Amino acid sequence: MNDREAVVAANRAFYDAFESLEVGKMESVWLQDQRIVCIHPGWRKLLGWGAVMTSWERIFESAFEMKFELGEMDVMISGDLAVVIVQENLTQRGYEGISRSQVLTTNVFERCGERWLMVVHHGSPIIQPEDDEPPLQ
Amino acid sequence: MNDREAVVAANRAFYDAFESLEVGKMESVWLQDQRIVCIHPGWRKLLGWGAVMTSWERIFESAFEMKFELGEMDVMISGDLAVVIVQENLTQRGYEGISRSQVLTTNVFERCGERWLMVVHHGSPIIQPEDDEPPLQ
Repeated sequence: MNDREAVVAANRAFYDAFESLEVGKMESVWLQDQRIVCIHPGWRKLLGWGAVMTSWERIFESAFEMKFELGEMDVMISGDLAVVIVQENLTQRGYEGISRSQVLTTNVFERCGERWLMVVHHGSPIIQPEDDEPPLQ
Repeated sequence: MNDREAVVAANRAFYDAFESLEVGKMESVWLQDQRIVCIHPGWRKLLGWGAVMTSWERIFESAFEMKFELGEMDVMISGDLAVVIVQENLTQRGYEGISRSQVLTTNVFERCGERWLMVVHHGSPIIQPEDDEPPLQ
């Protein structure tokens, strides 16, 4: 497996953990470090292992099912750092019924020995309608 | 200047170009490449030099003034890739008057010889009110 394949696999493992709704699986794909950063769509920034994992617990508690279809992926790798940009097409079932949303995400992974572990997850909502002119800044 | 200082300076140069509202200055801080990615808050992903620079032209045309106060910065560097996460506190004056907004941004830079050039700008709106519990995913 070359670096790109390994990074794409690490990115897939993150979404598998997300769909599993199990905090233990989510913990296994992140670097256990105080530098890790997580920005859920619309949330403020969460910094460090404790804050990030608490947010996953909270999200998983309120969801019954989450399914991700991933769109086009951009991958950049140098040294021990890899950046993946991907569109998440998300279908979720929770206490308030089924909802679908589109999220653009930048995921960053750091090479740790043989593994690539997540150090940044930055998801943001797409507000612009399809085929529409982009809104202004 | 060490790598971190050089990356922080490249990040500052991006915001100086943004505040200048001059496309020429914005062009000078990006890598001229088809791989570059820009996600303005709420927009769909823009890929490649042409699409990205056209978006800056459009934003600059409709703004009279933009001022950024940057918050806490997280910097990760390895090899020729650097990731900067920063909160933008933005005041802008346009045709519709003055508005203030908070944006969380992941900026990625690539080392090109002596310079660090932008390859990703991903900005996303903060919807969550200050001191409030985060909304769910």
